[in-house]
Amino acid sequence: MQFVRGLGKSRTLLQSLIIYRSSDLLNCTGILCRNMAQYRVERDTFGDISVPADKYYGAMTARSLANFDIGGETERMPIPIIRSFAILKRCAAEVNTEFGLDVDKANYISKAADEVIDGKLNDHFPLVIWQTGSGTQTNMNVNEVISNRAIMMMGGELGSKTPIHPNDDVNKSQSSNDTFPTAMHIAVALEIQQRLMPGLSLFKEALRSKEEEFKDVIKIGRTHTQDATPMTLGQEFSGYRTQIENGIQRVNSTLPRLYELAAGGTAVGTGLNTRIGFAEKVAAKVADYTGLPFTTAPNKFEALAAHDALIEVHGALNVVACSIMKIANDIRFLGSGPRCGLGELTLPENEPGSSIMPGKINPTQCEAITMVAAQVMGNQTAVTIGGSNGHFELNVFKPMMVANVLQSVRLLGDSCTSFTKNCVNGIQANRETIDRYLHESLMLVTALNQHIGYDKAAQIAKYAHREGITLKKAAVSLGHLTEEKFDEIVRPELMLGPK
Amino acid sequence: MQFVRGLGKSRTLLQSLIIYRSSDLLNCTGILCRNMAQYRVERDTFGDISVPADKYYGAMTARSLANFDIGGETERMPIPIIRSFAILKRCAAEVNTEFGLDVDKANYISKAADEVIDGKLNDHFPLVIWQTGSGTQTNMNVNEVISNRAIMMMGGELGSKTPIHPNDDVNKSQSSNDTFPTAMHIAVALEIQQRLMPGLSLFKEALRSKEEEFKDVIKIGRTHTQDATPMTLGQEFSGYRTQIENGIQRVNSTLPRLYELAAGGTAVGTGLNTRIGFAEKVAAKVADYTGLPFTTAPNKFEALAAHDALIEVHGALNVVACSIMKIANDIRFLGSGPRCGLGELTLPENEPGSSIMPGKINPTQCEAITMVAAQVMGNQTAVTIGGSNGHFELNVFKPMMVANVLQSVRLLGDSCTSFTKNCVNGIQANRETIDRYLHESLMLVTALNQHIGYDKAAQIAKYAHREGITLKKAAVSLGHLTEEKFDEIVRPELMLGPK
Amino acid sequence: MQFVRGLGKSRTLLQSLIIYRSSDLLNCTGILCRNMAQYRVERDTFGDISVPADKYYGAMTARSLANFDIGGETERMPIPIIRSFAILKRCAAEVNTEFGLDVDKANYISKAADEVIDGKLNDHFPLVIWQTGSGTQTNMNVNEVISNRAIMMMGGELGSKTPIHPNDDVNKSQSSNDTFPTAMHIAVALEIQQRLMPGLSLFKEALRSKEEEFKDVIKIGRTHTQDATPMTLGQEFSGYRTQIENGIQRVNSTLPRLYELAAGGTAVGTGLNTRIGFAEKVAAKVADYTGLPFTTAPNKFEALAAHDALIEVHGALNVVACSIMKIANDIRFLGSGPRCGLGELTLPENEPGSSIMPGKINPTQCEAITMVAAQVMGNQTAVTIGGSNGHFELNVFKPMMVANVLQSVRLLGDSCTSFTKNCVNGIQANRETIDRYLHESLMLVTALNQHIGYDKAAQIAKYAHREGITLKKAAVSLGHLTEEKFDEIVRPELMLGPK
Amino acid sequence: MQFVRGLGKSRTLLQSLIIYRSSDLLNCTGILCRNMAQYRVERDTFGDISVPADKYYGAMTARSLANFDIGGETERMPIPIIRSFAILKRCAAEVNTEFGLDVDKANYISKAADEVIDGKLNDHFPLVIWQTGSGTQTNMNVNEVISNRAIMMMGGELGSKTPIHPNDDVNKSQSSNDTFPTAMHIAVALEIQQRLMPGLSLFKEALRSKEEEFKDVIKIGRTHTQDATPMTLGQEFSGYRTQIENGIQRVNSTLPRLYELAAGGTAVGTGLNTRIGFAEKVAAKVADYTGLPFTTAPNKFEALAAHDALIEVHGALNVVACSIMKIANDIRFLGSGPRCGLGELTLPENEPGSSIMPGKINPTQCEAITMVAAQVMGNQTAVTIGGSNGHFELNVFKPMMVANVLQSVRLLGDSCTSFTKNCVNGIQANRETIDRYLHESLMLVTALNQHIGYDKAAQIAKYAHREGITLKKAAVSLGHLTEEKFDEIVRPELMLGPK
Repeated sequence: MQFVRGLGKSRTLLQSLIIYRSSDLLNCTGILCRNMAQYRVERDTFGDISVPADKYYGAMTARSLANFDIGGETERMPIPIIRSFAILKRCAAEVNTEFGLDVDKANYISKAADEVIDGKLNDHFPLVIWQTGSGTQTNMNVNEVISNRAIMMMGGELGSKTPIHPNDDVNKSQSSNDTFPTAMHIAVALEIQQRLMPGLSLFKEALRSKEEEFKDVIKIGRTHTQDATPMTLGQEFSGYRTQIENGIQRVNSTLPRLYELAAGGTAVGTGLNTRIGFAEKVAAKVADYTGLPFTTAPNKFEALAAHDALIEVHGALNVVACSIMKIANDIRFLGSGPRCGLGELTLPENEPGSSIMPGKINPTQCEAITMVAAQVMGNQTAVTIGGSNGHFELNVFKPMMVANVLQSVRLLGDSCTSFTKNCVNGIQANRETIDRYLHESLMLVTALNQHIGYDKAAQIAKYAHREGITLKKAAVSLGHLTEEKFDEIVRPELMLGPK
Repeated sequence: MQFVRGLGKSRTLLQSLIIYRSSDLLNCTGILCRNMAQYRVERDTFGDISVPADKYYGAMTARSLANFDIGGETERMPIPIIRSFAILKRCAAEVNTEFGLDVDKANYISKAADEVIDGKLNDHFPLVIWQTGSGTQTNMNVNEVISNRAIMMMGGELGSKTPIHPNDDVNKSQSSNDTFPTAMHIAVALEIQQRLMPGLSLFKEALRSKEEEFKDVIKIGRTHTQDATPMTLGQEFSGYRTQIENGIQRVNSTLPRLYELAAGGTAVGTGLNTRIGFAEKVAAKVADYTGLPFTTAPNKFEALAAHDALIEVHGALNVVACSIMKIANDIRFLGSGPRCGLGELTLPENEPGSSIMPGKINPTQCEAITMVAAQVMGNQTAVTIGGSNGHFELNVFKPMMVANVLQSVRLLGDSCTSFTKNCVNGIQANRETIDRYLHESLMLVTALNQHIGYDKAAQIAKYAHREGITLKKAAVSLGHLTEEKFDEIVRPELMLGPK
Repeated sequence: MQFVRGLGKSRTLLQSLIIYRSSDLLNCTGILCRNMAQYRVERDTFGDISVPADKYYGAMTARSLANFDIGGETERMPIPIIRSFAILKRCAAEVNTEFGLDVDKANYISKAADEVIDGKLNDHFPLVIWQTGSGTQTNMNVNEVISNRAIMMMGGELGSKTPIHPNDDVNKSQSSNDTFPTAMHIAVALEIQQRLMPGLSLFKEALRSKEEEFKDVIKIGRTHTQDATPMTLGQEFSGYRTQIENGIQRVNSTLPRLYELAAGGTAVGTGLNTRIGFAEKVAAKVADYTGLPFTTAPNKFEALAAHDALIEVHGALNVVACSIMKIANDIRFLGSGPRCGLGELTLPENEPGSSIMPGKINPTQCEAITMVAAQVMGNQTAVTIGGSNGHFELNVFKPMMVANVLQSVRLLGDSCTSFTKNCVNGIQANRETIDRYLHESLMLVTALNQHIGYDKAAQIAKYAHREGITLKKAAVSLGHLTEEKFDEIVRPELMLGPK
Repeated sequence: MQFVRGLGKSRTLLQSLIIYRSSDLLNCTGILCRNMAQYRVERDTFGDISVPADKYYGAMTARSLANFDIGGETERMPIPIIRSFAILKRCAAEVNTEFGLDVDKANYISKAADEVIDGKLNDHFPLVIWQTGSGTQTNMNVNEVISNRAIMMMGGELGSKTPIHPNDDVNKSQSSNDTFPTAMHIAVALEIQQRLMPGLSLFKEALRSKEEEFKDVIKIGRTHTQDATPMTLGQEFSGYRTQIENGIQRVNSTLPRLYELAAGGTAVGTGLNTRIGFAEKVAAKVADYTGLPFTTAPNKFEALAAHDALIEVHGALNVVACSIMKIANDIRFLGSGPRCGLGELTLPENEPGSSIMPGKINPTQCEAITMVAAQVMGNQTAVTIGGSNGHFELNVFKPMMVANVLQSVRLLGDSCTSFTKNCVNGIQANRETIDRYLHESLMLVTALNQHIGYDKAAQIAKYAHREGITLKKAAVSLGHLTEEKFDEIVRPELMLGPK
């Protein structure tokens, strides 16, 4: 019976997904496993818990996996956060040598952190975004992995917490409450520099190049989607270029507050259990390591309790998204056709179109990047809501906020690069069509205003429109100008700027 | 030098990520590969392209991978879409046997589709959400994989398109423009039934159970966050239960329009190249297979050009998110403490709290589910913007829209389940604290209104407040009532309903 | 010096605005006025306060004016809320006669309420939206005005609270906490019936009429903004009509929960100080008075603490906004031109266009209604955020939430009416242009697939495109068909539906 | 019969509202009026139209009133836009004297503009926001009013367009397409300087003052809403102060792009029909007049086609809204009670609370300002959507965009002022309660870590929690410390910073 079979099938799939998502705890009774070969037992203040034998993470991570079965592997904490955490742990370890941490231990912490930074241990970070709102479990995941990896390097026993203790050594002078926001800022700043800015710059330069290429292509302008006075295609592209150029400025103008790090604030912002100078030294170390001008946040209470800096950065990303939506919409409409659209631009053909309609080419790069734009605008709302809902000394929407910001940064960067390479660079002006529109347009009549007056000019335009004839024919028919005089005055190339 | 090293390291990671993301095209010159052992060459109207030898997908998928390097593997088209596409292909093949498709071919298409439905071929669907806005490339990805898998089953040659052609057979009577919206509706409807509704029902029943458990616990109510008149804790939970109960109704009331399928509309909604009856039969077959009451959309033009049904469904999810945010906020505030908060509820302890502060337990389940709520509210904006930006006969924000709806459905479903199991079920009333507040509250004075008048009652309340004494002591001090009379009148248990 | 003068001027204006906004308290020292002729002194538990002698409102309203100087007169509580409050007060007074309220008093309360309902006393409701989040001050504003107006009718003294007391009589069995949500539901329901539904219906019928008028106009379809296969203009409009038709259904499907009234819940939802039956009788009375099927909310705790019903209703309005955005965008693009756009539709000319460009007509109705659509989408976010932020027994974002819902309802209703009358009704098909596109389109080649095969068809299309010639010419040149055969097969009128 | 009466009544009200809204055209047949005494007839290229005899506006405004009956008088174009338009017209007239405008005419234009700036002619600007998306009709409304007012000053005839022509003189060298965006930037910049910044500064200073006042009040910190380590109340307020301080910086960092004016771009950005230098001179004149550093936009195409600058400004307002939401939420929770809440703060009592509950005081200022915050977050979405939907040379969501930005600016400014004066300034620390919490908190145990180790400290905390006793009693009972030693170590005043 199909009904049952269909549902049954889907349920089977569903079950398999659930099993897959919890695969790290497979074959377990409760949270203690039968097959001890594949698992080791870790202990914390809540008791014993099984952990996969081949994973560096420990009890805290395992509990989070069991307690937050939300979304599965597609919802994992973004890798840039893990990487930034490792940068922080590395820098903190170095600074902590000034405050009592054994130098040898610090070196091994750094080595283990380097492997995390290099992405070699990505499989050891299985936690999802939808965990505790302070990101505590990811901080502990990092502490556990670095500690265990360093222990292994030093010839110790996995899970023994010695000689490198996840809390006492890797987390020394730190709290989740100040490390997670620190990692958020490092991650977003790095991604902006490494992904977004290259994409935006590439896009801007491509637009500038087209602006130059099209600087002599005179076309009809359109306002209200209706025919208007002439301009050059280069001028049109200069508007797009200015939007992206300003977008770069906008993002940059939000960075000063992103470069402020919470590290050193510990639990509530007071810096309890840190030493004077720790905060400043860690920020300097991170700045040195990343090459970005990080500083210690002047007010740690704000840095833990609010993430206004992320909302501000995303506000700038949101503007970039709006710019992109506008530009890509224009390009697809100007490139619409090939026979029944505006057809002023020819866009590159990157892949076959419809399986039904031969020869159909679609502006797919415009579609991908406008979808990205819509997503960024949605992320703006999510970041705003998370950012507004902090309470007392801690905002607990941290993982959600940073995941949205990082997605926006990456999608914008990647899609600008893709759009530039696969669309903008190959755009060609369809000069014949552009020229035809230009000379058909009734709005050239504007040039007559100063010669025969607005009223007669209007009369010509309306007559031409009603009769479906050219302006010139209308002008001559109405007896307002000779053909020669018309040709002398109505010259689009003289309508491109102030006089 | 740290500066350079840091950046260098990050760049290395970045590079490795990029390589990883494009790994399917590794070792290629342009898009033709050197190492022909690992790749086979496919051909389409754009020429030759290398495809990994062990993958069932073909040229169209490979081109999309190369052209849309946006976001990487965390941004892949959601599996429920792939699965729903396979359900559709299976059903279409069966119906197509009535319209000329060879029965044997149809059987093999069904078998291959079953493997996709069962998740066995997930690795063959590498495309990201950020592709063409009609989802054409995912439709073709599905056509290619099913065709090649069926060819293999029949002993044919991979990529030969014979005896099962991806377009002519798997895509028969279909277009991306009608199949993608069909898959969207199937996927969202299935996920609602299989993930969201179970989660919401579990949550609702847990709340109802607490409502019953707490029906005799009289507590102080709070309005404007300030002390107000009494109620039972059960009444308070009944409000939460009602919100979720209504939420289920809300989602259900949007389903009639979600159950309408676009299949049969083909390219622009006219149904060109389909046969009369195809649309209805496919919808019936999908209904039969899934057990859900799908029907053919009465107007296919709307079904391709607009996805109002998805916006509508998400509007209901958005209400559920608001309900959840309210309930989880209440629970964490009522459970705040243990010594310096409201402390009326004791929440289950699921994991150790701070590494600095022993004994600290945090309402982490509330945090995860409120982050989900914020994400859903953000997705609402993304879906709205995508939905409003369709043009002419096709909305080209399809993949983005459905990815957001599916994420909301899954996160809500999963987090309701997690929240119920790991928080709600274990909530205990801290009766001592509740009782202490109840009897300290000045708002019990309201009961005196009908006996000594509003003015004297107000006098008592203000006096008690100023002096920091009980209402009873104030009442007696002021000479308005005897202790006995006060005890007779001021009885919270009589203030719980109309008389 | 211009600098100073400019700023000085602006400041003067600013000052005058502030004075204007606070004009009700003009000439006052602190909050007690010198000119006693223009003011009367009212007293409450906070002491004396001056109230304009010619106003019916009292102390509570005057304090709110002084304490919430936010936004000024353009931010006043919407009139539909005031009107709905008066309906509620009227109905409550009638019901209260069963529970001890003097019948004569009730009659005068009803008469005074009628004047408020009729809009005669609008000047007596000066409070802004940005007051207490429970709307308490507007509830008291209504109580004060009705009480004073009734007192005047009965020959009493303004402000004497006798024989009609604002709290004891007008507010009897009520609390702001249950009356404001009741007024919210009444107001939104009435506005939906009286403004939105007429507008949507008018719009839908106009679209249906165009669908009929254009049912034989065959045109080229467009997907991805690119040329696609043919359809009729009637079919295109049928998609729009379906969107609006569904929109009506969507709004209607949310109403059951909007028709639930909070009245009878009083302070925290328990119904303290009401009598058994009051809630049900008031709801019945309101239903009777308005002709809408209001009922008493089954759970009053939910009805005070959450306004999910408003978020749900707005979710449906949000879908309507998306539909409108899509439809109006299509219409302006299809009507773009007159010479350099798509030009398939001619839109009515309602007003002169540019002062520079004679004859320019803009799709201004499309612009107004798409701006409305964007506003509604923004309101969706505001309503969502307000709705998610309730705490404990009361949501205190009530005035903001309802103001946004009412604005969306009214703007959608009004703009649909305006758009229909001033644009849709006058749309004409530009058949010549439509026909030209149709026969130029390369996508008609699709009809050849079944006769000469996809490959030869593709060859024809590509050749025609490259050479800029017609399909027929290309087909004949390539020797694939005779002119006669081509004309026999390529017939758009046969491509409009399944076979 | 009540049913009919009810609906009838409401309909009557509705009718009266509609009539009221269209009152300027009252008594008219079509758009030509019978009572010629009250109306004068104006003529434009569309024919004759009646205009109220006592109004300075003309045909264009009258047509807009008739064609855009959307929302009524509460939806009028914001006054700051009208005022900024007048500033622009004034400056343009002065500059135009260099390009052929008669000096005498220019002087009268300036005088008439001054009256508009001073708000004397507000009644002559009846148009709503929901008009043409370029704001053309408001530009013409201003042109008409200034022209007619100047004509009257010069002794001419109303509506004669002589000696001051609305287009040729008042609109000289201008187009709606560049003037409306210019007015948008001027209006928003002025409102930011005159309303927002004073409000934010007042708020910031009040917070700083409380920070100082509370610098020695040691209290328990709260993370995850749960008890955490100690801090001072001054430190807590320093976080709030930093948020607002950063908010001011954020808004300021967006202003460079807001100070760029579109004037001089005319119809499509080319500056057609202006003279070289006009753009720069007008910007300088506006800068001079307002005292703000306006410059001419370096790219006019961007300035007409996109309003990214407004989206950027609003992005900063959105961050301020999030800050405010967080701060006001904290304050109402810290001030919750008086007996059954956290009760650490005492908020000023500004008005009586509930009519049922004597002595109830609500944090109404927190409620007003958080409602404002939610509105601003909603406006963010509206502005984003409008901003992303520009097409070709013109964005036609101008009035909607600027109306939202102006509302946000004003509401934020006003509510910050109100909140500061009526709440923040009067906040008192409830030292007794604060101190009690501090010494009851289990989190002070953290201080023992470095003396007896984390494990014993944890044992003490858990024992104290389980037994409901103090940490000291638990420590002594368990034999880990003497009472004296405990008192020596556990000193909150030593836990407020790094060592």
